[in-house]
Amino acid sequence: MKEIKQITPIEKNFSKWYIDVVTNGKLIEYGTVKGTIIFKPNSYGIWENIQVNFNKILKQQNIRNIYLPMLIPANLISKEKNHVDGFAPELATITKVGNKQLSEEIYIRPTSEVLFAEFFKTEINSYNDLPLAYNQWANVLRWEKTTNPFLRNTEFLWQEGHTCHSTQEEAEEMTMNMINVYKIFLRDYLAIPVITGIKTELEKFSGAVSTFTVEAMMKDGKALQSGTSHFLGQNFSKIFNISYKSKENKSEFVYQTSWGISTRLIGAIIMTHGDNRGIIIPPKIAPIQIDIIQIMANKEPKVEELSTRIFDQLKGEYSIRVDKSNKTAGYKAAQSEIEGIPIRIEVGPRDVLTEEVAIIRRDTLEKVMVKINDLTNYISKLIDLIQSNLLQSAEIRLKKNIKVATTYNELKTYLEDNKFVLVPIINNNEYEKKIKEETTATARCIPLELDIPTEGMCIFSGEKTTRFVIYAKSY
Amino acid sequence: MKEIKQITPIEKNFSKWYIDVVTNGKLIEYGTVKGTIIFKPNSYGIWENIQVNFNKILKQQNIRNIYLPMLIPANLISKEKNHVDGFAPELATITKVGNKQLSEEIYIRPTSEVLFAEFFKTEINSYNDLPLAYNQWANVLRWEKTTNPFLRNTEFLWQEGHTCHSTQEEAEEMTMNMINVYKIFLRDYLAIPVITGIKTELEKFSGAVSTFTVEAMMKDGKALQSGTSHFLGQNFSKIFNISYKSKENKSEFVYQTSWGISTRLIGAIIMTHGDNRGIIIPPKIAPIQIDIIQIMANKEPKVEELSTRIFDQLKGEYSIRVDKSNKTAGYKAAQSEIEGIPIRIEVGPRDVLTEEVAIIRRDTLEKVMVKINDLTNYISKLIDLIQSNLLQSAEIRLKKNIKVATTYNELKTYLEDNKFVLVPIINNNEYEKKIKEETTATARCIPLELDIPTEGMCIFSGEKTTRFVIYAKSY
Repeated sequence: MKEIKQITPIEKNFSKWYIDVVTNGKLIEYGTVKGTIIFKPNSYGIWENIQVNFNKILKQQNIRNIYLPMLIPANLISKEKNHVDGFAPELATITKVGNKQLSEEIYIRPTSEVLFAEFFKTEINSYNDLPLAYNQWANVLRWEKTTNPFLRNTEFLWQEGHTCHSTQEEAEEMTMNMINVYKIFLRDYLAIPVITGIKTELEKFSGAVSTFTVEAMMKDGKALQSGTSHFLGQNFSKIFNISYKSKENKSEFVYQTSWGISTRLIGAIIMTHGDNRGIIIPPKIAPIQIDIIQIMANKEPKVEELSTRIFDQLKGEYSIRVDKSNKTAGYKAAQSEIEGIPIRIEVGPRDVLTEEVAIIRRDTLEKVMVKINDLTNYISKLIDLIQSNLLQSAEIRLKKNIKVATTYNELKTYLEDNKFVLVPIINNNEYEKKIKEETTATARCIPLELDIPTEGMCIFSGEKTTRFVIYAKSY
Repeated sequence: MKEIKQITPIEKNFSKWYIDVVTNGKLIEYGTVKGTIIFKPNSYGIWENIQVNFNKILKQQNIRNIYLPMLIPANLISKEKNHVDGFAPELATITKVGNKQLSEEIYIRPTSEVLFAEFFKTEINSYNDLPLAYNQWANVLRWEKTTNPFLRNTEFLWQEGHTCHSTQEEAEEMTMNMINVYKIFLRDYLAIPVITGIKTELEKFSGAVSTFTVEAMMKDGKALQSGTSHFLGQNFSKIFNISYKSKENKSEFVYQTSWGISTRLIGAIIMTHGDNRGIIIPPKIAPIQIDIIQIMANKEPKVEELSTRIFDQLKGEYSIRVDKSNKTAGYKAAQSEIEGIPIRIEVGPRDVLTEEVAIIRRDTLEKVMVKINDLTNYISKLIDLIQSNLLQSAEIRLKKNIKVATTYNELKTYLEDNKFVLVPIINNNEYEKKIKEETTATARCIPLELDIPTEGMCIFSGEKTTRFVIYAKSY
C-alpha cells in the first residue's frame, strides 16, 4: 500500500505546494519526454467534463466540431509573418519518416490558424456560406523552455474555435461574445472569477489584430491567462485568399476570429481552490462528486448494505465512488481529500443503527450527521453550496487583491506584495518593457468591466489618460 | 450555391464510388500533407457519437480514460524488437525544434504500447494494483505508402485500451472480452456484422503473443479489419520491468492486453450501408437523425410554423436539422440523402391543411404520409426499423458471401469473385505467403464462431486438419 505523501504547506512554498498537489493528487505522472505529462483519470476526468459542458455551449451557439490534421507543411506557416515569428522557436519539426528524409519539413501544430485558413479557402464561396464557425478539440505542441504541469507543457490539450464573417463588426462581436462565454463558463463551472480585458500590443497573439483575455488570480496573487479570443481581421484571409462573392457579386475577404481554452484550466482550478490537503474540485466538473467510504465493513456486514443503499439512492444524479478497500478510515479520508472529491460520506457500524451518516465537505472540511431519509435533499443542496462557496471565496480574494497605483513606486510596492495593480499609463511599448524588465510583472490586460477611475495621470509621462492597465506577475 | 455532384454508380467502379461518397457527402476535405484528411462535422459527429457510446461501455467495464503524450523517445520504442520492426518504416521523426537539433530523435506515436509500459512501471507496485485498465482517445501517426480516406490515413483518431493483469488467464479473458465488446458495439451501434477470429502469426500485431480481430465485409466483398484486441503476454512487461509484489511477496511480471478501434469505422459504415445516393448513417450514431425540409415556406408562412411544431415535438429525443434555406425541394432532398441522414420530413403548403407530412427513409427511400398526431410514435418505431434493417441487410450479405473451398483452385475462383473463403489449411507461413503472392488475398483470421466443418484436408499438404482460415481481399 502506497503511503499518502505530505504536501508542502501553501504558506511555506507555493510552487512546491503546487507540485505536491499535482503529483500526490493522482492528477499526473511526468512523461518520458521533458515537459510532457500523463493526464491520469482524476485530471483527464476534469477535462472530459469541461468538454461535455463546453460542447453544450458550442451547440447553443451553432458552432460545429471538426478535426484537422496536426501536420503543418513548413511553407504554410511561413505565410503569415507575425504568426510564424511568434511560434518559430517552439516548433517541433519532422524531418524524416523511417529512414527517409522528407523533401519539405513538417511542423506539429502549435495552433491551427494556418490549417483552418487553407480549409476555409475551399469551404467558402459566397456570402451564403457565412458566418462559418468551427471548433476542434485537439492536442498541440509548443516546445517551451520552462515547463510546469498543466500551466505550460510541451504537449497540451485544448479547444480552438475558428470563425469567418463577412463584416468586421460581426467578427469583432464574435470575439467579444466568446471572451464572455469563457468568463461565464469559468464562473459557472470552474468557480473561477476572472477579469476580462484587451491585451496590449506587446502581449497580443502573434497574427491577431487584437486579443481579448480572461485573467484569473491564483492563490499566490499571480495572474493566469485562462482563455483568449482573437480578432484576426483580414490578416490571414488576405494572405491565404479566403474570399467570397458578396450579395453585390463582388469578391471580398472574410474577417476572422479564433479563441481557445486549454488543460491549463486544471492548473487554474488547483491554484484557485486548493488548500493544504490538496486540490478541491468544483462539484460541477468533478470526475467523482461523492466518495462513499466504508468503515469496518469487515466487522459489520450491514455497513456494506447501507453504503449500497446510499449508492443506489444517489447514483442517478451523481458520479460516485465507493471505497470498499480494507484500508483504515483515516487513510481513506486523506486519500479522498488529496484527490479533491467535493463530498465524502462515511458509513460505519454505528450508522447502521442510527440511520445517520457523516457528510464531510471538501471545501470547508465541515462534518454533519445526516439522516438517510434526508440524504438526497441534503446532497443536492450541498453540491450547490460547495460550488457557490468556492466561487464566492475566490471572488472575495480577487476583489481584495486589486489595487490602484498612481505612481511607479506604488506599482512596484503592490507588485512585490503580489497584487493585481491597476495603473494609468499611456500606450507606449517602452514603458511596458521597462516595467517588465524591472519588476518581472507584465501587462495582463486593459480591463473591460472593472470599476476604473475615469481618468488618471500616466505614471511615467504624467499625461492625463483614460488608459488603465492591469499589471501582475504571472504564470 | 454549390451544385450537388454526381456519384459514380457503385456497380460501375467501387473505389470511385467510395471517394465520391466521401468527398460529396460533406465528410472530409483532404489535408495539406499527403494522406491526411479533415474530418468535417458529418464525419466527426459520427466519431463523437462513437466516443459517447463507447465511453458508456468502458465505464461499465471499470476502464478509466487517461491521456498520454504523443512523443516517444527513440530509445523507448526500440526496446521491444518485434514492435519497433513492425512500425519503423512508418515513424514520423522529430529531429529539431526551432533551429536547434535534438540530441535524441523523437517519434510521434503510431500506437502507445511503450508509453503505457513506462507508465505502468510507476503505477504498479503490488497485486492490490491489479488488474489495471486504462483507455485513451488519441490521434496517431503512421506514414503509410498508400492512403485512402478513413481506411488508411497518415493521421487517424482512435481509442487504445491497455490493461495489466496478474495472471495469463485473466489477460487472455480480457483480450477475448474486448473483441466481443467490439463485435457487439459494431452490431448494435454501427449495424455492422463481423466475423471474430484469431490472426495468423504473419498477420498479428507486432509485439503481441496473439491478436484477435473483428472482420467486416464491405459491399465489394473485401474485408475490413474493424477492431483488434491483442494478448501481449509478458513481452512488454519483461522488457520494461512492469512487475508487482504478489500475495506471497514474490516479484512477478504482469500480463498485458491492448485493443483499439479507429476512425476507420467511418469507412466501414460507408462501405457497409452506402448506396448510389451516398452514405447511409445508422440512426443510433447519426450526427443528425432527422432532416426537416421546408418546401415553399416563402409562399405559405404556415409551413415554417408547422415545421417548428414538428421540431419542438421531436427535439427532446432526436438530433434534428431544419433546412430553412430557399433552395429547391429537390436540391434539399438530394443533399439530405448524400449526407446520409436517416429520416427526412418534408413540410409543404398542402401539409398545413391536411396535418400530414411526408416521411422518407434514407435506407429504403420509401415515402409515407404520417399524421402529425402520430408522428412521435411513428418516428420512434422508424428509427429502430432503419437501424435493424441496415443490420439485417448487412448480415444477409455477409452470410451469402462466405464460401467453403476444398482446393486451392476453388479458393482462387471464390477470391476472384470477391468472396470470404473458408479453407482448411495447416499452420505454415510458406503456404500463407504463397496465397498472398498469387491472389493478393490475405488470411483474415481463424474464425471463432462460424459454422465450420469439424475437419478438412489441407488444400496444400492434403493433411487432415481442424484449422480453417478465412481468406479475402482486404483494405
